Amino acid sequence: MGNSFGRLFRITTFGESHGKALGAIVEGCPAGLEINEEQIRLEMQRRKPGQSKITTQRKEEDEIEILSGVFVGKSTGTPIGIVIKNGDQKSKDYSHIADKFRPSHADYTYFEKYGIRDYRGGGRSSARETAARVAGGAIAKQFLATKGIQIQAYVSQVGDLALQKPYTSLNLDLAEDNIVRCPDPEIADQMIALIDSVRLERDTIGGVVSCVIKNCPPGLGEPVFDRLHAELGKAMLSINAVKGFEYGSGFEGVKMRGSQHNDAIVNEAGKIHTTSNHSGGIQGGISNGEDIYFRVAFKPVATIMQDQESVNEAGETVTVSGKGRHDPCVVPRAVPIVEAMAALVLADFLLISKTNKLAEI
Amino acid sequence: MGNSFGRLFRITTFGESHGKALGAIVEGCPAGLEINEEQIRLEMQRRKPGQSKITTQRKEEDEIEILSGVFVGKSTGTPIGIVIKNGDQKSKDYSHIADKFRPSHADYTYFEKYGIRDYRGGGRSSARETAARVAGGAIAKQFLATKGIQIQAYVSQVGDLALQKPYTSLNLDLAEDNIVRCPDPEIADQMIALIDSVRLERDTIGGVVSCVIKNCPPGLGEPVFDRLHAELGKAMLSINAVKGFEYGSGFEGVKMRGSQHNDAIVNEAGKIHTTSNHSGGIQGGISNGEDIYFRVAFKPVATIMQDQESVNEAGETVTVSGKGRHDPCVVPRAVPIVEAMAALVLADFLLISKTNKLAEI
Amino acid sequence: MGNSFGRLFRITTFGESHGKALGAIVEGCPAGLEINEEQIRLEMQRRKPGQSKITTQRKEEDEIEILSGVFVGKSTGTPIGIVIKNGDQKSKDYSHIADKFRPSHADYTYFEKYGIRDYRGGGRSSARETAARVAGGAIAKQFLATKGIQIQAYVSQVGDLALQKPYTSLNLDLAEDNIVRCPDPEIADQMIALIDSVRLERDTIGGVVSCVIKNCPPGLGEPVFDRLHAELGKAMLSINAVKGFEYGSGFEGVKMRGSQHNDAIVNEAGKIHTTSNHSGGIQGGISNGEDIYFRVAFKPVATIMQDQESVNEAGETVTVSGKGRHDPCVVPRAVPIVEAMAALVLADFLLISKTNKLAEI
Amino acid sequence: MGNSFGRLFRITTFGESHGKALGAIVEGCPAGLEINEEQIRLEMQRRKPGQSKITTQRKEEDEIEILSGVFVGKSTGTPIGIVIKNGDQKSKDYSHIADKFRPSHADYTYFEKYGIRDYRGGGRSSARETAARVAGGAIAKQFLATKGIQIQAYVSQVGDLALQKPYTSLNLDLAEDNIVRCPDPEIADQMIALIDSVRLERDTIGGVVSCVIKNCPPGLGEPVFDRLHAELGKAMLSINAVKGFEYGSGFEGVKMRGSQHNDAIVNEAGKIHTTSNHSGGIQGGISNGEDIYFRVAFKPVATIMQDQESVNEAGETVTVSGKGRHDPCVVPRAVPIVEAMAALVLADFLLISKTNKLAEI
Repeated sequence: MGNSFGRLFRITTFGESHGKALGAIVEGCPAGLEINEEQIRLEMQRRKPGQSKITTQRKEEDEIEILSGVFVGKSTGTPIGIVIKNGDQKSKDYSHIADKFRPSHADYTYFEKYGIRDYRGGGRSSARETAARVAGGAIAKQFLATKGIQIQAYVSQVGDLALQKPYTSLNLDLAEDNIVRCPDPEIADQMIALIDSVRLERDTIGGVVSCVIKNCPPGLGEPVFDRLHAELGKAMLSINAVKGFEYGSGFEGVKMRGSQHNDAIVNEAGKIHTTSNHSGGIQGGISNGEDIYFRVAFKPVATIMQDQESVNEAGETVTVSGKGRHDPCVVPRAVPIVEAMAALVLADFLLISKTNKLAEI
Repeated sequence: MGNSFGRLFRITTFGESHGKALGAIVEGCPAGLEINEEQIRLEMQRRKPGQSKITTQRKEEDEIEILSGVFVGKSTGTPIGIVIKNGDQKSKDYSHIADKFRPSHADYTYFEKYGIRDYRGGGRSSARETAARVAGGAIAKQFLATKGIQIQAYVSQVGDLALQKPYTSLNLDLAEDNIVRCPDPEIADQMIALIDSVRLERDTIGGVVSCVIKNCPPGLGEPVFDRLHAELGKAMLSINAVKGFEYGSGFEGVKMRGSQHNDAIVNEAGKIHTTSNHSGGIQGGISNGEDIYFRVAFKPVATIMQDQESVNEAGETVTVSGKGRHDPCVVPRAVPIVEAMAALVLADFLLISKTNKLAEI
Repeated sequence: MGNSFGRLFRITTFGESHGKALGAIVEGCPAGLEINEEQIRLEMQRRKPGQSKITTQRKEEDEIEILSGVFVGKSTGTPIGIVIKNGDQKSKDYSHIADKFRPSHADYTYFEKYGIRDYRGGGRSSARETAARVAGGAIAKQFLATKGIQIQAYVSQVGDLALQKPYTSLNLDLAEDNIVRCPDPEIADQMIALIDSVRLERDTIGGVVSCVIKNCPPGLGEPVFDRLHAELGKAMLSINAVKGFEYGSGFEGVKMRGSQHNDAIVNEAGKIHTTSNHSGGIQGGISNGEDIYFRVAFKPVATIMQDQESVNEAGETVTVSGKGRHDPCVVPRAVPIVEAMAALVLADFLLISKTNKLAEI
Repeated sequence: MGNSFGRLFRITTFGESHGKALGAIVEGCPAGLEINEEQIRLEMQRRKPGQSKITTQRKEEDEIEILSGVFVGKSTGTPIGIVIKNGDQKSKDYSHIADKFRPSHADYTYFEKYGIRDYRGGGRSSARETAARVAGGAIAKQFLATKGIQIQAYVSQVGDLALQKPYTSLNLDLAEDNIVRCPDPEIADQMIALIDSVRLERDTIGGVVSCVIKNCPPGLGEPVFDRLHAELGKAMLSINAVKGFEYGSGFEGVKMRGSQHNDAIVNEAGKIHTTSNHSGGIQGGISNGEDIYFRVAFKPVATIMQDQESVNEAGETVTVSGKGRHDPCVVPRAVPIVEAMAALVLADFLLISKTNKLAEI
């Protein structure tokens, strides 16, 4: 259970880090959408390992192959099956780690839950699984683009280094111009230097990815349990290494008075909107047409290049050695994953919203 | 859609703030559980309006009536239907607000989504809906109690006033001894004074509810999308006025190095556990047997006793007057709601976990 | 689990035969639908016990109360909560049956599944639960009526007495003119006589309900698992006492050759349709715009007014005495239940179909 | 929507008849199950085209490749991804059929639903999709086998030729000894001759597959909507060409009196069971431990080797020519599909049943 996300626009993923392949099944994509495979590949490139000096140097081409659901370049309404082969699955020897529980990984919890686990590279718990999400999310993005909805994520914090300006004062287009994906070039340089120094210390560091959704129509989201921000929150918290989610005014908003926090509603030339946006574009769990924005906290990666004491399956004390090639900081590569999950959430709610009013059915 | 939560242990709610009644259907409660109605009533009392000077003075008895699913005091495995009558539903005149969009409420978004809305007291978007969740959550709690699982929430912040100590240094049993539900008596007094002063200013203020889950067995939660913390996050974000969720090290954790953040695993007298708990009791989305803890941010209540400019359904500028009896700060009454939702999440995962291993089936 | 039906247009029921009340929650009804309560009551009358000499003489008024989701006479898009009180729940003494397993009832299977059961009148396994379905189905019918979709069921067989003519040769409007709900007045009289004679023998007899759906637009139903006829089949098989389902040519169709069975497609004045309809209006699981028709087999009611040998919870041989007031044949009262379930299936698929084509989103 | 079946033990399929590949994702298989790939291949052989003179002569090897979820020969609890490559996908020219609606196929309904369709070999509507089901069902069977549950289907009717004996008088082990899969050798020969003669007439014919499930424990199935037989019915009706489903006494049972139809319950040496089995092993939607048996009606295949008049996408009258290699009768190859779907239903309910009683959790 838990391998699917969404109700009408729905992704299901399968695959382990070092199995034969990963895959995604995308259901509910409306028929007649032109599927741009090149754009899917570009998203895959943004997530791919080895893309810069501050990411893992592991080699994975992450080539996608579409097996179904697309005909003469268009979606047919049937499930789109995508497979991503794992390149070097057999090359490594994992016997040194086979029965050890790496600290702050999922080794112990998978073992407790299932009694058996694919220990190679973390198996299903590896962030490699998110490659399948990015592929599926790329299709959701293409669907949303036909409605003018845009999603852009960026790195807003690495360790202590945080962007102080609100997103409205930033040129988000600059985010993709540097390898850390921060839209402020100066702070981006500092972030890169910080990550690089952490890497040299054979350590890792956390960060925050922020995301802005523009042109979302009002009316998306469901009352009560499936609020738009609740689904966005679940989507983000389902990404590896995420520890927190906040939208609109977030945790800082708790310090405000209602009289400050409330967003005044005005009619500007026939368009109803709000003069401030502490609500983050969502009121009562439903989009109001303003920008949606949120922040996602990522912990420092658990795999460090240092020896750590731990325990093995037999309960014996063992040393887990830091080996291999890993990310010193996950946020630069997390940016397209955040966007992919946001796109999947919105695509699903957009479809549901077509069934709300009798007058439109 | 979105009126249900959970897969095996599942709640569905219905009802508007000023309709005839609210209700909850609880499905999947294992058969043979002794249902303590008195304990459900005690939970309802904790959420009830009018319980202290710092909550709304509205009168609602919130009496529950169990219509089905319980026989000779025990659950039968069939759905437990619960109804909560709305006491004074007809007494008010809402014509002054009928076509106005109150700032930072769900009036505008419901209107955009559905084209029609029950404007009395916010209808379905009212936090009154959470009464049904508390009733359902009380049953989940009783189920979890048979397995020794305990859930305790408390107020850890009101406006700027925040508990600085970690929960492990607090006596959580003290939380229910004061009306703000903060386990530090000194800070509780300050919080009460702050809320009271905000109330006199006819304003509102936000806060944070923290929650600790003890004795959760390892192995609860699903890989990938339905991680334990992702479902907890969704559950909390689905509560009215919530703006953020973090668990374990949360947003502060992003500043740490991996070497600091990793929780060392040890074997202590045959029991595997971790010496620190930045993971918050969850690794790879699955419980590891340590305490689970998280924080939930609530914005200041949108209903303030002040005049505000806004727009009506016709797009005309109007004044929304502050009237009626409302909470100056929602967190004291949110404590049992947070617990109820946490209980529903855990009950569901506990049932799912019984189907994971072939050896146990 | 298993108390809900449908994905977008969704009903959840709760309640036992002799508990305080039954109820239905209807989710996903598009906002703005005029809810005609009188029409719901009329459907309830058609299912109600005591309506004629060939049905049980039990007294239940089956009064519905709508608790939520309807405002100023219209659906608001939020869940419609309906409660049906059980009139005489406390009047009976069930101690004579409390620990006995009645033959061909669900007593033994509920006991095996749950270890506890509400033995009064069969509890949740009683066909009384279908009252909640008829209430919910009445709302689905009103939604479908706005699109011109009509559903009509009727009794086509009682014991050996079967209508030989196809539905296209019948005047279905006559079905409601007699108490057995058969559109052929002559055979209706024979059926009534047969049921009456069976009743006098203190026995019961089975029958078949047929159903025709007119004006269903093409494109409803999902490929693969959720085919339109598969959901119709599940819906019908979920009704108490049902043993079989067939649509279109059904079991008789297996004897045909493909060259006879295939429905030729023609263009008649711009409208594509088929010259025969062995397909029953469904091809590849999706409606093609022709009439949908199907048949549902009901076994003889298990409660007979005769003594039967059986076993009790302790495994001892006991006599189950026939007492009380029960239906000698269930099909006359099953007609509105079949219609209700068909309406729920179609309403759900109609909503889903609004999300299929990009060009219409 | 509609590409998944099951809740805890769940299959999702993707793929078109002439796309690159088909696939199945199997979720919820308990961890630790030894996966016998050879046994999966044997099931695939039973469904494979070209296996005898009375099936289509199309060549497809139907080789499965397991991509995930199995490690060192055992299930890990994570999704099992299976891919089946389509062998000769590019070889054919479909331009002659590209815009034509074949009679009694899904061409017209897919076109109406989606506005676009993969016309090659019927695309997603092709029975080729069931190859993925058989692969997934083979895993479900292996899970059930660990609990002693056995599922056996066989051909009981072809055209007018029907087995008259009940299954209890047959040696079902003989079914796999002949190419039509009928356990009565004499009637099997007649069936084979009939199918062969129909084939020579370039026509097709229908049939019935019967199925028996032995050793199913009591307590499987859910009350109300998800009754065991309702899910079995949906599962069977979701198979291509199926027109009807009946279990236990079925349509014939409607002619019986309750006093004949009721199954007497006895205690035989400490084991409670019934002396007859008109209930078909299911009472109130829940298994009672007796044999479960049901029948599934298949229409004659719509593809015939004859010219037929029809209409194309432009609404013009056209001739659809009978070409290619197709099954004259689908039931011999449907036998393993019926078993696969039954296995998926039971595996799902078996898991759910582990969460019913508090005493067992």
